[in-house]
Amino acid sequence: MSIRIITISREFGSGGRTVAKAVAQKLGVPYYDRQLVDKIALETGFAPEYVAEESEYSRTRSFLSYVFAATSPGADGRFTGISNADRLWAEQCRIIRDLAEEGPCVIVGRCSDYILRERDDCLNVFIHAPKEFRASRIMQKYGDTGIDPQKRIDDMDAKRRTHYKHYTDRVWGAAQNYHLALDTSLLGIDYCVDLIVNAAKLK
Amino acid sequence: MSIRIITISREFGSGGRTVAKAVAQKLGVPYYDRQLVDKIALETGFAPEYVAEESEYSRTRSFLSYVFAATSPGADGRFTGISNADRLWAEQCRIIRDLAEEGPCVIVGRCSDYILRERDDCLNVFIHAPKEFRASRIMQKYGDTGIDPQKRIDDMDAKRRTHYKHYTDRVWGAAQNYHLALDTSLLGIDYCVDLIVNAAKLK
Repeated sequence: MSIRIITISREFGSGGRTVAKAVAQKLGVPYYDRQLVDKIALETGFAPEYVAEESEYSRTRSFLSYVFAATSPGADGRFTGISNADRLWAEQCRIIRDLAEEGPCVIVGRCSDYILRERDDCLNVFIHAPKEFRASRIMQKYGDTGIDPQKRIDDMDAKRRTHYKHYTDRVWGAAQNYHLALDTSLLGIDYCVDLIVNAAKLK
Repeated sequence: MSIRIITISREFGSGGRTVAKAVAQKLGVPYYDRQLVDKIALETGFAPEYVAEESEYSRTRSFLSYVFAATSPGADGRFTGISNADRLWAEQCRIIRDLAEEGPCVIVGRCSDYILRERDDCLNVFIHAPKEFRASRIMQKYGDTGIDPQKRIDDMDAKRRTHYKHYTDRVWGAAQNYHLALDTSLLGIDYCVDLIVNAAKLK
């Protein structure tokens, strides 16, 4: 079985999304990032903004917020006894598995490495870089948003770590979960792209 | 500053040592693994077997064992108030830093990625593979030792994890600590070697 699916998990500001886009382009396969949010929103009826936030960035919740979530009606107005976040997770798993079935593609984040763990045609990649490098890249890319870039990085990392742990019971960024983990600050975006494209042809 | 030092951390049975040897050979630089143990033993007076065990595999110790260690004489017969394990760690740090100063080399394990963290001429690599792959490789390499290979893997992983955490306060195998983390089961030994050699020439 050769590699058909590439999942790319990434630290905020590391260039992971840029790498993923370029890999998809070089391989001539679809690339799912924001498109995945829109697809999930369309199929579930949840607002795209809610999907974007909940599909990757669980916030630490109090026990009571779970109780209220579980006793609130879903997007379709029915009471299901499970929280919207958990319903979203179930739909996200289904949609990502369906996409993988449809054909070769590149999927960014959203626990796709974990969701597709039973497949033997996935190449799982983690893209990261030291904080200083990411802070400087964020300033270049998004300009000065008034929020300290180091603070944004810490915040995003913490949210992704919490979300990943909650739904997968794995440690986010543990090398063992990925076939390749790459530091863009030393390797550079272009080298990472070539490396992933070549690795995908190995199996 | 170009890359002069390559540190290779590895999971037991992943082929990390084989990769490290081949990288050193391709680059024509010294390779320190068992040689490092002998060097530390020679310079400290500790037995090589003790150095081999303590330089990578701390065991979980009780508080009392620390008290006894701290109140026992060192290799030179003097009472220093610190344990032999901690004296060995200090010497190990000094020797690894000296080796890095001497010239380009490949160093296997022994927290060398952490010990040399202030240098900007290091390429830090983590080599790993799924347990089933490692168990099969261990059986091929060492034959049947009477101990379940999965048990040996769990034991060695746990020891390395504990030792690394104790001396570095970092999580062993966290992708963020390495420029490259590679799964030999998918990528293959030869590809990993070429990849590291090429990456070392990037900076």
